[in-house]
Amino acid sequence: MTLSMYAASTPTFRRMLGNLAAILNKAAAHAEARKIDPGVLLSARLFPDMLPLTKQVQIATDTAKGCVARLAGVEIPKFEDDETTFADLQARVAKTIAFVDSIPPAKIDGSEERAITLQLRERTLEMKGQDFLRNRALPNFYFHITTAYNILRHNGIEIGKSDYLGN
Amino acid sequence: MTLSMYAASTPTFRRMLGNLAAILNKAAAHAEARKIDPGVLLSARLFPDMLPLTKQVQIATDTAKGCVARLAGVEIPKFEDDETTFADLQARVAKTIAFVDSIPPAKIDGSEERAITLQLRERTLEMKGQDFLRNRALPNFYFHITTAYNILRHNGIEIGKSDYLGN
Repeated sequence: MTLSMYAASTPTFRRMLGNLAAILNKAAAHAEARKIDPGVLLSARLFPDMLPLTKQVQIATDTAKGCVARLAGVEIPKFEDDETTFADLQARVAKTIAFVDSIPPAKIDGSEERAITLQLRERTLEMKGQDFLRNRALPNFYFHITTAYNILRHNGIEIGKSDYLGN
Repeated sequence: MTLSMYAASTPTFRRMLGNLAAILNKAAAHAEARKIDPGVLLSARLFPDMLPLTKQVQIATDTAKGCVARLAGVEIPKFEDDETTFADLQARVAKTIAFVDSIPPAKIDGSEERAITLQLRERTLEMKGQDFLRNRALPNFYFHITTAYNILRHNGIEIGKSDYLGN
């Protein structure tokens, strides 16, 4: 069995988003136990011009749904970016997992050479499916999952590497 | 052309380690320009019981060389973990890139089902090559590259997402 585009994408998103959901649960429980306003954690940043926790979760989920949709050649589901609570973020993560699970392997397998066009703020990037997955989607996805973890860890939430890896 | 185990591993390590090297260069230049003791950055952490920058770089490189060596079925090069300067870390990153570049694609391709044994502190993990790559090596690698970035960003180094992504 060779590595397929599906195997290299959807299961990773599903798994890491599940781990993110568990981490967010621990953060919400921590806030409740210590009587911390959850908004303090949701708006926490590692540096004033870095993005806060809520935005890290929004971008991680955007990256997952955008990658799967682009590889499959289907429309990217639009989310409103209006989350203000941990429950809202959990719902967003769950919606994202449901979307990536809704795309069957056959739609993604064989997308190695599919032409992907990314419209960025200042330029348009054209690349092949496998380059998009390896050089753009996965690094971005892991960046925002890890940064969400780091923001929470920096704020004293008791999580560890095994929460991130999910084992 | 289908996604190969080589394409899903070595080029990612080479690319992201190159980006890490460029980020470390900016950090060293920042320290010099502001007369900051480089040791302050090298020992910086996001939380008291998280690992410092030097260790993040050591583990990122360990993950890359360990993954490529295990998939190829060759001995993992041993590094001494004695880095104390930015130049030392750069040398370690360069040694790691040289090692992953030294393993030809043919040694890694076809390792999807290869049995990989990981001796952790408290348990032994057995998994197939592709599960090891997707669920263990890549998430770990990206975690430590991103955390190195976050530590430096948290300390005011002027780097951005494009330094991390390398484009």
